[in-house]
Amino acid sequence: MAESRMAWDRLQSFMQSVFERVGMPPEDAKTEAEVLVWANLRGVDSHGVLRIEWYLELIDKGVMNIRPNIRLEKETPATFIMDADHALGPVVTTQAMRLAMAKARNVGIGWGLIRNTTHQGAMGYYPLMAAQEGLAGIAIVNGPPSMAPFGAAAMGVHNTPVAICVPGRNRRPLLLDIAMSVAAGGKLRLAKDRNTPIPIEWTLDKNGKPTTDPHLASILLPIAGPKGSGLAILFECLTGLMVGDPLLEPSLKKEPGADVHRQHGIVAAIDIAAFTDVEAYRDHADGIIDELKKLPRAEGHSQILVPGELEDLTHDERVRDGIPLPDGTVEKLKIAAQRFDVPLPDFVS
Amino acid sequence: MAESRMAWDRLQSFMQSVFERVGMPPEDAKTEAEVLVWANLRGVDSHGVLRIEWYLELIDKGVMNIRPNIRLEKETPATFIMDADHALGPVVTTQAMRLAMAKARNVGIGWGLIRNTTHQGAMGYYPLMAAQEGLAGIAIVNGPPSMAPFGAAAMGVHNTPVAICVPGRNRRPLLLDIAMSVAAGGKLRLAKDRNTPIPIEWTLDKNGKPTTDPHLASILLPIAGPKGSGLAILFECLTGLMVGDPLLEPSLKKEPGADVHRQHGIVAAIDIAAFTDVEAYRDHADGIIDELKKLPRAEGHSQILVPGELEDLTHDERVRDGIPLPDGTVEKLKIAAQRFDVPLPDFVS
Repeated sequence: MAESRMAWDRLQSFMQSVFERVGMPPEDAKTEAEVLVWANLRGVDSHGVLRIEWYLELIDKGVMNIRPNIRLEKETPATFIMDADHALGPVVTTQAMRLAMAKARNVGIGWGLIRNTTHQGAMGYYPLMAAQEGLAGIAIVNGPPSMAPFGAAAMGVHNTPVAICVPGRNRRPLLLDIAMSVAAGGKLRLAKDRNTPIPIEWTLDKNGKPTTDPHLASILLPIAGPKGSGLAILFECLTGLMVGDPLLEPSLKKEPGADVHRQHGIVAAIDIAAFTDVEAYRDHADGIIDELKKLPRAEGHSQILVPGELEDLTHDERVRDGIPLPDGTVEKLKIAAQRFDVPLPDFVS
Repeated sequence: MAESRMAWDRLQSFMQSVFERVGMPPEDAKTEAEVLVWANLRGVDSHGVLRIEWYLELIDKGVMNIRPNIRLEKETPATFIMDADHALGPVVTTQAMRLAMAKARNVGIGWGLIRNTTHQGAMGYYPLMAAQEGLAGIAIVNGPPSMAPFGAAAMGVHNTPVAICVPGRNRRPLLLDIAMSVAAGGKLRLAKDRNTPIPIEWTLDKNGKPTTDPHLASILLPIAGPKGSGLAILFECLTGLMVGDPLLEPSLKKEPGADVHRQHGIVAAIDIAAFTDVEAYRDHADGIIDELKKLPRAEGHSQILVPGELEDLTHDERVRDGIPLPDGTVEKLKIAAQRFDVPLPDFVS
């Protein structure tokens, strides 16, 4: 299957223009475009520019707010709630992470809750902002049910992505970005496209029965049974309940409006300098990576990869060679190009 | 196999007397006994009174310090490092959690790092302290390598236990207490005692080969491959590296003294009142539990259990009927009783 590749910077300019034509302030359009293309650069295509179709749909419906009134609430020297007013995720989340970082520099940690954001995109982007300035970063987000809690044959919890990032010295930041579901969205979509069976432990069908048919896959299953399930439950308690707006309970009770898309999340930054010497910290981060990579390899593994490393390799390759775009994604971009009269950049191959 | 049961309060008094005779201050001896018996009450026997033999060994060697000089370092309004001076884990960790809670009440969150503690026992105890006073609690601990990182055939990371707890109203606090390894220590021990095979995904033998023989099990394997492995790596970065004393790198380099038992950890408390209405929060916590428990059940599940619920049931049963003690554990208690001339309580059955 031949895939068209597009230069990342041209794709990003295109996306920014589309978001500007939609009516977003230029600075917000830039942020949104950057976070989407960053996901593509890192190979996380499920969170990249293919989302444009869904985002435009949510903007048209007024579910995503292109001119939000983002408000800071309940601030302390270390914590805050930021109400996103249904902003596009990256617009509010970058702002919230910057505030968390400022608080961390003052009192060692900044722990921010974001209420009423919409899809935040690739979560790793936000803690990486912290690591790029010598802080440790954490981001957690919760949404409506998508996953069965342990023991259930129906959706009850969200798969709650979590991302953590810390800085290294010569090595790039360690960047973990994971959800609590066994199946990665991208791998599930690929199995659908290829019509290949999926492992039985990935999903349930809509009736709550295990399935290996990707087209019947409907309910995600948690990693490690009660462990992934338990983390998802507690993350709802640390996000939705903490901002006074649970997402799971109303949805399970089928309350009106409960399933309108919105998310609540945490962004946190920890100032390493409040605890220890930052330069030594950077050396130690490189040191643990170096030692882990020297370990004897398990069968079937050609190397030991640390969190974010595979995505860093993809990033470098795609910066050089362009971002591969499957036909379906190109089609979505063409529709946006036509609607907003923004020329789609040429393919580089 | 008949098991002897002992009343929990008598067992706790016995343990306290032993720790006092060892030379611990009475208040510290009480804390240590409470945390151990709490684990037994909740059915987490692997972290209960059977540890007495190992603890006495470490105290005799000077690895655990019964008269520690616990010092507060690098304090900010929201964060701190507490150096444990190799105190027994519960002695320093309860103190650190109380400080984190006080800071949370002032500035919304308290995020404390504990350096140079020793075995902390059942981690759930500490975040529960926060939940019992209407706060959310988090505890994370890291130690020397015990688990293979994803892709490796040797130990490289610790299995890094994590515990999170939030308060409910009529229901008891949601209390998650998990490690990043597939195999629970208790289940592994049971398989050894019973000489039954273990699942192939639990462990590797000392040569890094998969095994189903519990007696050959030597290296833990992470939950969900790169996810559990990645969390373990990042938790070292948020604990050991943050207190300026990495545990993994020196151990992998086989540096002298690297494998002397010690741990570094995080205790954090979040003041719910800094974010939202605590009474509403408690209702919502009950609400999500109620809804999850109503979901249709997966095959093989007679009910849907939320984090901590099974342990709460065991707790009530054991408070009523006593704590069952296998012969091996009774033997360890008898040795301690004899050594310190403290009478072992009678069995209740």
